[in-house]
Amino acid sequence: MTHLIAIGGSDAGISAALRARELDPSTDVTVVVADEYPNFSICGIPYYFTGEVAPWQSLAHRTSADLEATGMRLRLNTFATGIDVAGRRLTVRTPDGAFEDLAYDELIVGTGALPSHAGIAGLEALSPEDGAHVIHSMGDTFALDHDLTTRQPQSAIIVGAGYVGLEMAEAFITRGMTVTQLQRGPEVLSTLDPELGALVHDELTTHGVEVVTNTTVTGIEKTPAGLTVNGSRDGQPFEQTADLVLVVVGVRPNTELLEQAGASLGAGRAVVVDEHMRTGLPHVWAAGDGIVTHHRLLGVTYLPLGTTSHKQGRIAGENALGSDRAFAGSVGTQVVKVFDLVAARTGLRDHEAITAGFTPATVAAAADDHKRYYPGAHPIHFRITGDTSDGRLLGAQLVGRRGTEVAKRVDTYATALYAGLTIEQFDDLDLSYTPPLGSPWDAVQVAAQAWSAANAKVLV
Amino acid sequence: MTHLIAIGGSDAGISAALRARELDPSTDVTVVVADEYPNFSICGIPYYFTGEVAPWQSLAHRTSADLEATGMRLRLNTFATGIDVAGRRLTVRTPDGAFEDLAYDELIVGTGALPSHAGIAGLEALSPEDGAHVIHSMGDTFALDHDLTTRQPQSAIIVGAGYVGLEMAEAFITRGMTVTQLQRGPEVLSTLDPELGALVHDELTTHGVEVVTNTTVTGIEKTPAGLTVNGSRDGQPFEQTADLVLVVVGVRPNTELLEQAGASLGAGRAVVVDEHMRTGLPHVWAAGDGIVTHHRLLGVTYLPLGTTSHKQGRIAGENALGSDRAFAGSVGTQVVKVFDLVAARTGLRDHEAITAGFTPATVAAAADDHKRYYPGAHPIHFRITGDTSDGRLLGAQLVGRRGTEVAKRVDTYATALYAGLTIEQFDDLDLSYTPPLGSPWDAVQVAAQAWSAANAKVLV
Repeated sequence: MTHLIAIGGSDAGISAALRARELDPSTDVTVVVADEYPNFSICGIPYYFTGEVAPWQSLAHRTSADLEATGMRLRLNTFATGIDVAGRRLTVRTPDGAFEDLAYDELIVGTGALPSHAGIAGLEALSPEDGAHVIHSMGDTFALDHDLTTRQPQSAIIVGAGYVGLEMAEAFITRGMTVTQLQRGPEVLSTLDPELGALVHDELTTHGVEVVTNTTVTGIEKTPAGLTVNGSRDGQPFEQTADLVLVVVGVRPNTELLEQAGASLGAGRAVVVDEHMRTGLPHVWAAGDGIVTHHRLLGVTYLPLGTTSHKQGRIAGENALGSDRAFAGSVGTQVVKVFDLVAARTGLRDHEAITAGFTPATVAAAADDHKRYYPGAHPIHFRITGDTSDGRLLGAQLVGRRGTEVAKRVDTYATALYAGLTIEQFDDLDLSYTPPLGSPWDAVQVAAQAWSAANAKVLV
Repeated sequence: MTHLIAIGGSDAGISAALRARELDPSTDVTVVVADEYPNFSICGIPYYFTGEVAPWQSLAHRTSADLEATGMRLRLNTFATGIDVAGRRLTVRTPDGAFEDLAYDELIVGTGALPSHAGIAGLEALSPEDGAHVIHSMGDTFALDHDLTTRQPQSAIIVGAGYVGLEMAEAFITRGMTVTQLQRGPEVLSTLDPELGALVHDELTTHGVEVVTNTTVTGIEKTPAGLTVNGSRDGQPFEQTADLVLVVVGVRPNTELLEQAGASLGAGRAVVVDEHMRTGLPHVWAAGDGIVTHHRLLGVTYLPLGTTSHKQGRIAGENALGSDRAFAGSVGTQVVKVFDLVAARTGLRDHEAITAGFTPATVAAAADDHKRYYPGAHPIHFRITGDTSDGRLLGAQLVGRRGTEVAKRVDTYATALYAGLTIEQFDDLDLSYTPPLGSPWDAVQVAAQAWSAANAKVLV
């Protein structure tokens, strides 16, 4: 019987534990969870604040009882403090503050990431009680919920305009608050080209969000009027005050435990693993937002995503039991709903492709989600990136109204990227068509044909 | 300058003509169209009868003026009667009944298919004025429209429960008519396994369609009460009368012109072409519903679909100008909306896979379209077919409510089929996720994992 310990109650740790129990029910599986909320959907938190998800308990993918029913043991409110690699022992701090050593045969570390503070002076000293928030855990969720309920803040500044920032802007607007969204770069949602980010920007503005771009926040302080953020905008000083400030500027890998145990750091200062989720430390595996990401087009990078964590966790669980599965690699597929708009991307954008050694070109196109004669057709805006040397598909970005099936249309590109198809092969795909839901050449192929037409001279 | 003639105003002929004009604007292109409605969306006709599409002119993908603006010449109401292959001349009957010979360098035949009468006695002798209809052309559309408007029939029998039959049932119900749908086999929508067809059956019943399965119609006659269809149901005599009868039992390839010119017939009694759309007759190409279909899994078959016609037409237009493109092959991807349900399939079902020499297994699964905690989640019902010898994905069938992105989820399977992925590789795909629109393992992957779990012993 294998004694397996997984650290982390989020996607990677739980996926690993579930997979191990599924593959070999004789495996003794313990999951060490720092809080008491294992297997909660962190991606769902913004929808708790819009009011669409209630009660908060429904955010659990599975309840503790569900998890225990699979035969795993949960050690909640238990914090992993050290790994004795040679002795195969994990030290944990128990809920009562005592330290305990747990023996293991195989250890899987899924300690995830921590919210970045982006070097904002004064942020560390402020707390949720002051109205300063991050949002990365159920604890953060309860703190924000409490603040919203008790202080009833009317205005919010959101520092950051990435996925969570945009979703939280929608949540605050839905609650009737005024929202100012600050973005360091020239356009919101910087994971997309600015031409498409601008469509998201318009959607935010339409719904009443004040979007301020080119703004770097350097400090935050408590003032009589609330919380005041300071920084610069287009080279000029910038200052704004609100009842509440939410800082959502990305994450940094939580590597302390593995670093202390002797693991190496790589891309994004995340823990280095191979495709098999091996850390290089004997019998120690790792998965999730704390490790580097193997990317099918970029090689090794850092791109923390829940979908990837699930896959890596599943592989770690499998390999810890003696299997030899390899992570097939991310292609960076992502999607976000912003009010009534859906924005998605997969693969590489121009500048990323150049860095990776490709010779890309990116071509814009727009095509209706279904035949225009049938009611409710809306254009989807595309940017397709392909390699001008061999016609290989390198990436796709899509923005369309909710209901235009953008989220699953990006998956067609993601599948083509996985298979290494050229854009010409993409045109050959036999995709579904009925007038209320598509076109004889699906919108994704119309966009691909626009790329081919623009690059015809290069390829012939 | 090449003189190119395309015969047929539907998907194949127009696609060929457009592609030729696009690739070489010096090409002299004439399209011979039997009626005066080139480039109409035949797939959209049912939505004219639901009232969702109006006026009928909006069913045109492009107007005649649009087409002529590309530089092609349209010969409307002109019927191709004979090909002099050696002399490279096409004989046509002009609108005034005269015969005219047209010289060509290259000829592309896209004469499509004709509605099948399924050997129903008496049908040939009846006309739209009698209330007996087929629906395959704009002429059929106008005849049905006229009948509905002038006679105001209250009841309809639809013979056939395939795509068009189901869409027309919805149209008649929307217009307040009573509808009886007769199906020869044990379940409606026989392109799906009956377990999924049953869901479509329920949807029809819920919306008031009387569905009668296991019923073969052998005759139809005019009676004092209307039109009476006769046949057998479960071995017993069957008879039913209605104000109107619509026969939609599939199509047969319209091959007369090419047969007379010396072309061979193959699968489904369709004209044999190679992947390059060559008929074997010098300088004569063919595309669309009149020719055999190259299928990536089945080899040569007959599977007429608009998406395929577009691709074949485009290739014929390209190759007629000297190119050497090959049709990459169909995988049989299809989708239909039936009231509030969407049903889709791609690839092979069990019995088809067995016939094609695979060793398949099909596994059922259901998974929510997005995270259940977010409002509006609905299950999608899947049947996944894979090869038990090597784990290769062979096919997928999906049924879900409208809005569950079934139409574009089937495209992920279609892309994987094109690339020849295994079901395990399908699980490795990096698909998009946000709680309102998906799950960390997308529903399509949950279904694939169900297949893998059920066939684990076979593969390990």
